[in-house]
Parts: sequence; C-alpha cells; structure tokens
Amino acid sequence: MSNPTIDQLYQDLISGDRSALSRSITLIESKSDKHIASAGELLNRCLNTSGNSIRIGITGSPGVGKSTFINAFGHYLIQQHNKRVAVLAIDPSSTLTGGSILGDKTRMADLASSEHAFVRPSPSGGDLGGVAAGTRESILLCEAAGFDVILIETVGVGQSEIAVYDMVDLFLLLIQPGSGDDLQGIKRGIMEMADVIVVNKSDGSLESNAKETAGFYAQAVGFIHPQRPNWKIDVQRVSSVTGEGLEKLWQTMVRFEDGQQQNGDWQANRSRQNQRWFQYHLEQELLRRIRTSEHVKNQASEMEKPVEMGEVHPLMAARKVADDFFNRG
Amino acid sequence: MSNPTIDQLYQDLISGDRSALSRSITLIESKSDKHIASAGELLNRCLNTSGNSIRIGITGSPGVGKSTFINAFGHYLIQQHNKRVAVLAIDPSSTLTGGSILGDKTRMADLASSEHAFVRPSPSGGDLGGVAAGTRESILLCEAAGFDVILIETVGVGQSEIAVYDMVDLFLLLIQPGSGDDLQGIKRGIMEMADVIVVNKSDGSLESNAKETAGFYAQAVGFIHPQRPNWKIDVQRVSSVTGEGLEKLWQTMVRFEDGQQQNGDWQANRSRQNQRWFQYHLEQELLRRIRTSEHVKNQASEMEKPVEMGEVHPLMAARKVADDFFNRG
Repeated sequence: MSNPTIDQLYQDLISGDRSALSRSITLIESKSDKHIASAGELLNRCLNTSGNSIRIGITGSPGVGKSTFINAFGHYLIQQHNKRVAVLAIDPSSTLTGGSILGDKTRMADLASSEHAFVRPSPSGGDLGGVAAGTRESILLCEAAGFDVILIETVGVGQSEIAVYDMVDLFLLLIQPGSGDDLQGIKRGIMEMADVIVVNKSDGSLESNAKETAGFYAQAVGFIHPQRPNWKIDVQRVSSVTGEGLEKLWQTMVRFEDGQQQNGDWQANRSRQNQRWFQYHLEQELLRRIRTSEHVKNQASEMEKPVEMGEVHPLMAARKVADDFFNRG
Repeated sequence: MSNPTIDQLYQDLISGDRSALSRSITLIESKSDKHIASAGELLNRCLNTSGNSIRIGITGSPGVGKSTFINAFGHYLIQQHNKRVAVLAIDPSSTLTGGSILGDKTRMADLASSEHAFVRPSPSGGDLGGVAAGTRESILLCEAAGFDVILIETVGVGQSEIAVYDMVDLFLLLIQPGSGDDLQGIKRGIMEMADVIVVNKSDGSLESNAKETAGFYAQAVGFIHPQRPNWKIDVQRVSSVTGEGLEKLWQTMVRFEDGQQQNGDWQANRSRQNQRWFQYHLEQELLRRIRTSEHVKNQASEMEKPVEMGEVHPLMAARKVADDFFNRG
C-alpha cells in the first residue's frame, strides 16, 4: 500500500533536499499512531539507499569543546574532501526542559549554514529507553539523503555513550589538556570504547599541556582492553582553532575504515548492531502495546489504591497483574 | 507460605544487623527466579517497618566532591544527632567495567567503618531501565534495618537524576566554586529538581570564590520554576573539610521535612512515587514474561536473519513480532 505523501518525501529525500530530511526526522520522532505507520514505510524504502557513510560517535565531558571541534572538523571535511556532513546530537540531560541555560548548539550555527552540512540538535527523547530512539533511524535518513560522514555527538557521562557506541562505526573520545587528575572524570568504560582519543585545544598556551596530556593517555591506553580485536586505540592532538591535526585525524579514520572493511570487522559490527537494534525495538513495541492494553489498564487500576496506601509492595502488585495477564483465558 | 530462611533474614535485618542488610540487598539484586520469589516475600514483610527515614538524593558533576561531602555529612549526623546513616550509590556510567580508574568509593571507607553507617556502592544495573532497579527496594531494606537518614548518590548528568529524584524526599545539588561559566555544565533541568543547592569546598583559598558562586546561584534560582509548590530552592555553602555549614544544612533539611509533613506534600509525594514505582515494576514484569515466552522467542529468531542482512528494517521486524504476540489466539 503506497502513500503518495511518503512517495514524494522519499523522492525529495534521496535528491538530497535538507528540508525533506528535516521533515523525515520529525516524522520518525513523532509518537502519533498515524505518523508511526508512515515513518515505518519511509524507513523501509531507505534500506536500499542507506549504509554508505562512516558513522562517527563523538563524546567528551561538558566544556571539552565538542561543538567547536565538530564545527571545525565538519568544515574541514567539506572543504578538503568534498564530503557532505551530518551532525546528530544526543543529550539525555536535556529531556526535562530542553537543554542547558547557555545552549551550545548556537556554536554550530556556522557549520549548519553550509549547504553541504546538516545539523540536528537533540531529539525529544523522554523516557529512559528513548534517549537514542530517533537517532539510529535519523542516521539512515541522513544516508539516504547522501550524507557520507555522520557525526553523532553525546555528553561524556552516562548511558548515552553506550547507546551511541552501539550505532557507530568509530567512537571518538575528546578530552582537554589538563593534569592526570582529569582521569577521574573519564570513566574507564568510556576509554575502553574509544577508537581514537583526541586531545582538543592543542594551541597557544595550552599546546605543551596538550602534548603532556596526549603522552599521558598514550601510556594509559596501554593498560586497558580495547573493544575491537584488530584496532589499537590511537591518541592524537588537534586544534579546533588553527585546524592543526584535523588532516591526520581524518587519515586515521580512513585507515580505520579500510582495515575494518578488509578484515570483515566493519560489516560484522553493523550486523551485530542491527540485531541489537531489532531487540531494542522489539521491547519498545511490546511495551507500547502493554501500556495501551485495556486488560492491563483495568487490572492495574485495581491495584493502585493498595499500592498508594503502602499495603502492597509495588513489586508484588506488579507480579499479580502480570500473572493475571498471562493466565487470562 | 513462610520461608524459614527469609524469616531469619528478616529478624536479623530489623535487629539492625548490617551484614543481614547486605545480604538482603544482594538478594533483591539477584536475577534468579528462586531469589526473585524470596526477595518479594522479604519486601512484603518490610512494608510495616519501612518509611521512617528522610530520603535524600545527592547529585553533582564528577570532581565536585560528592564522596567527601557524604563522608563529612554522614559523620556529622552520626556524631551530632545520633543518626544511623545509609549511603546508596547509582552510577550508570560504571555498568561496562564497574567504575572509574581511580574508584572514588574508597573515599567513603572512613564513613563505612562506623557502626552507625552503611555504605553500598553501585548496584549492578546493566540495561538502560535497570539503573535504579534495586535502589528503591534497597531504601526500604535500609529503613527496615533502622537507618533513619538515607543518602542516595548519583552522578551529575543523565537519566539517573530523574530516577533518583523519583525515589527521594529531598534532592540536593552539589556544585563547586567557580565562575558563572560552570552553569554550562549544569543543566537547567537538574537545577529545577533541586530542593537545596550546596556550594562545596567553601574553605581556604576557595572560600571567597564559593561565596561568589553561591550568590550567583541564589540569583539564578530566581529565574527557574521549582518542582515543589511550597518550597523555595535554598542555596548554601559547606566545607567538607572544616565541617562549616553542615549544621545549617541539616537544620534546613529538618525545616523542609516539617513543612512538607504539615502541608501534606511529603505523603503526597511518596504516594505518587509509589504509583510510578508500581507502573515501572508492572512494565518490567510484563516485559520479562513476554521476552521469555516461547512464542516471542520463536517469532523473533525467524526475523533475525533478514534483519541482519538489512532486508527488513529492525523497527518493522519488531512490529511484526509484537503484532503476532498480541493477536495470537
């Protein structure tokens, strides 16, 4: 069953129209039943036109200069390598009110103004599981629209790293020049996930400090167990102001992709990610239907009073309703 | 049906035995079916012996000195007010490898050695939804064991704040002396959740800086909408080294509890939390049973290959399996 609106949207999308891309992402983020069906149709269409990008996750603590780095790196890729660059951001801490007081997305306005770039701030996540819900699908849509480098930005703490790690080909950890004390703020788990660690702000009075920090991390990575069997965590320095180091960083990424493509790790990683993506959606779909089931709603409302009064523990009440659901008829 | 092991555990628990408390928490964290049943029995027993504590959530960015503050505040409450203090920690970023390189739990070893304190590091969360799974139940167990101040620590970014906010009576945001730029690292949503904002490290050369920061935040909170109708966000300074400010902080907490108890907000908040706790458990229980149902397992395994090959979008595959489950028979 073909939907003429979706037909048109898909055609506009694969012609590279950025406004169609924006509308497509809004569609897949929608929670209305009608939109959910259309979004599914659009995504199925995009299966054949997606996959041909390098998906790069970028993380780092607040203040490390992620937006400035992405702005500089994006411009570099567009100007020096004729790339089309999409930036997606995941920020789980913005769900309550929609962002920080001093929103830093404005710093990427410069990149966003390039016709070869596409910048999309945080999707409206909401619930715990939903942090990354729209982002995986947004990657496919960006690829269908012809973007060949996708940068997925996230903040440097919490579950969002794991979510992003699970949707990218290469994971980049951005750190700033500083003493070894900084290690306290960066969890070992995050370092283990990194394919490349980049010391930002390697310019001016911070340059020698950056060299020292890079040396420190180069040693530190020797003590940790990397996630990928055929890649050694690389430590580099860049300046997002002068652009120094961006060329070398990109060459490293190309070398990473070539190597992983050749030994099969690239495709194996994406297949695994597809499987987990399916499992994630399966749980979300089941949850959505559980939540809207009349049977469950009625049973649950009977337990509400005793739970509220503290007469039954919430866990016991939940088990009773679940038992009823599975033993019905 | 009474279980003699659980009988004994419960008796030991309400006698205040810390080792019984440890074992009880381990029991409720267990994922084995046998333990899940015993855990439920234990929790139901604890309903009558729980609830008589002040539950305090503590958050703040890495490096702000949470552990040092909790250590100092815990000792103060034990020594000056004869309290029994339990500390529970939620750290979603530690799920991959179990913590930071320089694990900061050792800083609380001092408090943990007091016989009037109980310190329990991160529960083994794992999945996205499970960050706080065992912690709510652990609060009840700590209360049954006679602990009357429960401190629940979490890191300053991400979904874990919302989870903790939803299980405490009072939410405390710890910040460090610094320029207004620091606001960038603290999301507006977190500030809105705070009942008390505490500037830590107000001592030595940082004291004047701390005063300035406190003044800055006192102004900033004027611009945000607090979550509780009858409480104005309070900004204070403490030194975890000299102990200055701890007395005033505790008095503020007592004033908060008295006021909320009198106007009914205290109980209303806990009732709402119980309801959401029930909803959470209900979804988890149903999901657990559906996931392990043979029907879903078979359907899902049929979809795995086409998903892996990129022939079907994971979302579409998930919807098909969910449709089959809910429309069967």
